[in-house]
Amino acid sequence: MEGTKKVKSQALLSKLATSDEHGENSPYFDGWKAYDKDPFHPLTNPNGVIQMGLAENQLSLDMVLDWIKANPEASICNAEGLHAFKNMALFMEKARGERVRFDPDRIVMAGGATGANEVAIFCLANEGDAFLVPSPYYPAFNRDLRWRTKVRLLPVTCQSSNNFQMTKEDLEEAYENAQKANIKVKGVILSNPSNPLGTTMDKTNLRSLVTFINEKQIHLVCDEIYGATVFRSPRFVSISEVAEEMECNLDLIHVVYSLSKDMGLPGFRVGILYSYNDHVVSCARKQSSFGLVSSQTQHLLAKMLLDEEFTDKYLSESRRRLASRYDSFTKGLKEVGIGCLESNAGLYCWMDLRQLLKEPTFDGEMELWRVIVNEVKLNVSPGSSFHCYEPGWFRVCFANMDDETLEIALGRIRMFVEKGKGAKSWQRNLKLSFSSRKMATSPRIMSPHSPIPPHSPLLRANN
Amino acid sequence: MEGTKKVKSQALLSKLATSDEHGENSPYFDGWKAYDKDPFHPLTNPNGVIQMGLAENQLSLDMVLDWIKANPEASICNAEGLHAFKNMALFMEKARGERVRFDPDRIVMAGGATGANEVAIFCLANEGDAFLVPSPYYPAFNRDLRWRTKVRLLPVTCQSSNNFQMTKEDLEEAYENAQKANIKVKGVILSNPSNPLGTTMDKTNLRSLVTFINEKQIHLVCDEIYGATVFRSPRFVSISEVAEEMECNLDLIHVVYSLSKDMGLPGFRVGILYSYNDHVVSCARKQSSFGLVSSQTQHLLAKMLLDEEFTDKYLSESRRRLASRYDSFTKGLKEVGIGCLESNAGLYCWMDLRQLLKEPTFDGEMELWRVIVNEVKLNVSPGSSFHCYEPGWFRVCFANMDDETLEIALGRIRMFVEKGKGAKSWQRNLKLSFSSRKMATSPRIMSPHSPIPPHSPLLRANN
Repeated sequence: MEGTKKVKSQALLSKLATSDEHGENSPYFDGWKAYDKDPFHPLTNPNGVIQMGLAENQLSLDMVLDWIKANPEASICNAEGLHAFKNMALFMEKARGERVRFDPDRIVMAGGATGANEVAIFCLANEGDAFLVPSPYYPAFNRDLRWRTKVRLLPVTCQSSNNFQMTKEDLEEAYENAQKANIKVKGVILSNPSNPLGTTMDKTNLRSLVTFINEKQIHLVCDEIYGATVFRSPRFVSISEVAEEMECNLDLIHVVYSLSKDMGLPGFRVGILYSYNDHVVSCARKQSSFGLVSSQTQHLLAKMLLDEEFTDKYLSESRRRLASRYDSFTKGLKEVGIGCLESNAGLYCWMDLRQLLKEPTFDGEMELWRVIVNEVKLNVSPGSSFHCYEPGWFRVCFANMDDETLEIALGRIRMFVEKGKGAKSWQRNLKLSFSSRKMATSPRIMSPHSPIPPHSPLLRANN
Repeated sequence: MEGTKKVKSQALLSKLATSDEHGENSPYFDGWKAYDKDPFHPLTNPNGVIQMGLAENQLSLDMVLDWIKANPEASICNAEGLHAFKNMALFMEKARGERVRFDPDRIVMAGGATGANEVAIFCLANEGDAFLVPSPYYPAFNRDLRWRTKVRLLPVTCQSSNNFQMTKEDLEEAYENAQKANIKVKGVILSNPSNPLGTTMDKTNLRSLVTFINEKQIHLVCDEIYGATVFRSPRFVSISEVAEEMECNLDLIHVVYSLSKDMGLPGFRVGILYSYNDHVVSCARKQSSFGLVSSQTQHLLAKMLLDEEFTDKYLSESRRRLASRYDSFTKGLKEVGIGCLESNAGLYCWMDLRQLLKEPTFDGEMELWRVIVNEVKLNVSPGSSFHCYEPGWFRVCFANMDDETLEIALGRIRMFVEKGKGAKSWQRNLKLSFSSRKMATSPRIMSPHSPIPPHSPLLRANN
């Protein structure tokens, strides 16, 4: 292997630079590195970093595992005709309380919601075009939606005083600012339920959003991948429900869905673009060969989603477990004086640590975040990585661990708040309290985070 | 659903227009439509179109099916640590006769070879940059490599007088023409073994190619997805073998691989980009979340590829069956005076019908092609869709059907050649000869072409 001198193509380097700009060096991803270097384990590394940056639902994986064990034939591909698209449409209806109907012919499969979101943008926009996105928003939108398509994302700043709900005025202002700057706005993209807020948009706000995009004749891409995680009222209202009731141009409306969050199956890479616009369906279908779902997995899912007794039970039990986890976690936080934005969905809380900041700035937020990751040893994600305008908010994931680990995390937060930042004494206490506890045995099947070698991109895929 | 008037976004329309330019309206795809409308079935539609446009290997699927049945636990995801990347590297070495070693850390998974090829281009080039590609070449390269990346493909015309082997002079000429036209050439991309030729490049030609890209300091992307279909000598020489022996810049060399052809598993969507360049590995890995392989499928494959007794037997038996099929098909053609380019690999022949053209033009080729599809009822692909410079060549796939169907196809060709284009009498004869034959029972598992609804993109994914 002689002569391997390094030649870097300009294109490649510019791609890598772009990627860094897009936030992969942000604390959102740095926290992951801290976890990767020193991961918590109840027995072998009880003082390690607890992963609370991963929006993954492990609370009901045992039910999926039991179903697969009870239906071994579903895992094996055979010639039996199964209707993956039809069964997916049925499940999407169920996840939305049977209030809407989905046409299987409008479903385009893509490689996860990541792929589906990118395909939507490739269909709708050209390089330089922009989408409005209510902030705070999912950090990887910057990578997924912008990197290869070269579109822009323009944050619509939502106010904490209004519980971060987006108003029509916020939207109008962002739109007008773009027009003044000569930027072509091609649409609005948002996640509902919101990641990172864990809140849902009500019917009035959704109607007002649909009216807005109709007035401007721009597109609306609704990422509803957390639709079935809504664990208490107000119930989830899908954009489909609102759009079908209203006088509006359905051609402007597109839904992204996935089984990664609602069914806790991120490793299966099942993402979907559902569009009411024939041209988008056709354009997306031509792209779907870039991210098709394995036929083996299609087969398994088609069988699983057809088993309505199972999916009914799964969806209600999953909601019950999420509500119970949310309650115990927020109650624990409340006992030490920490509040969260009141939420009804998702796999995370939007935690309010404004009162713990040394100064109300993003530098202050970063300083606090470093203490939380490096000393309290919890990987949480600071609001700045979600483009939140106000320092002091943190997203904390609570559904990717067992009860015992959650208790340890709460214990660390309690100690941290009570003792201030006396890191040394805190660490000693921690060791005394937790080093002898029993190993938890939570189901880890099908999570991309265990059996895959450390360099696998799966480690970053579903956050 | 009121108010659904049609609004077409400009971006979307331009994308659709681009897609059509990229050859999806070419005879290559039109033949598929003819097959879709009137598919051959031995019992229910014995006069239907036989699909000979699909480069799919069904000759050894029974062996894969038997393995899956004998190893049911491999189909079910569990927490057992399996090394998908390591086992894939082992299989890639085996498919190349153990003459090269692959580093699992340089393997990036993508959604099929389609996705892997696109990822390579996204890494290496910017909009407007060009790649040289020896013609005739795989028609979907136009879609896969160009559509979303917006790079150009510049054919390097290879001559039938030279058995379509690419010479260094051909390459130099294409490169200089590009320079004169002020087009930036970023690399060479080619499939070896060749699709559609079914031939392999020898070591001398490969060395000369590596020298060329080193002199120009441009990249080389080798699509080796047919590597293990080489059924007789000369044996397959991987670019990796040549590059490691030579004094050259390995940073310029990238290999695309997949299990779709070599293992006959197109539905699994396992594509791989293997690069010797750290920057490309890193850039590709960041993109891999757009087309990850399902964890369930990774699990199954990791087990299957680790079973060396199985993979050894599979590879040798698959080659034996391909050789036997190639021999019986080309022998049948020869008996009626039809020759093919002599080949040693692939799932197809490059059939020479120059003497059957009414006139030696592409119009003449299209006229003959229409008769073959509409009257002889065989879906073959005309050379023009592969950017062949000389009219009269056709790619005919022979590994996607059972022996009985191949015999019917040969019978139709025989009748067509013997009776000229007397379509009416030909069709009558056909009916008498074949309508009462027994139904064939070939294994159809895991092909994306049976259990998927007709609108599925899978129908187009692996051709």
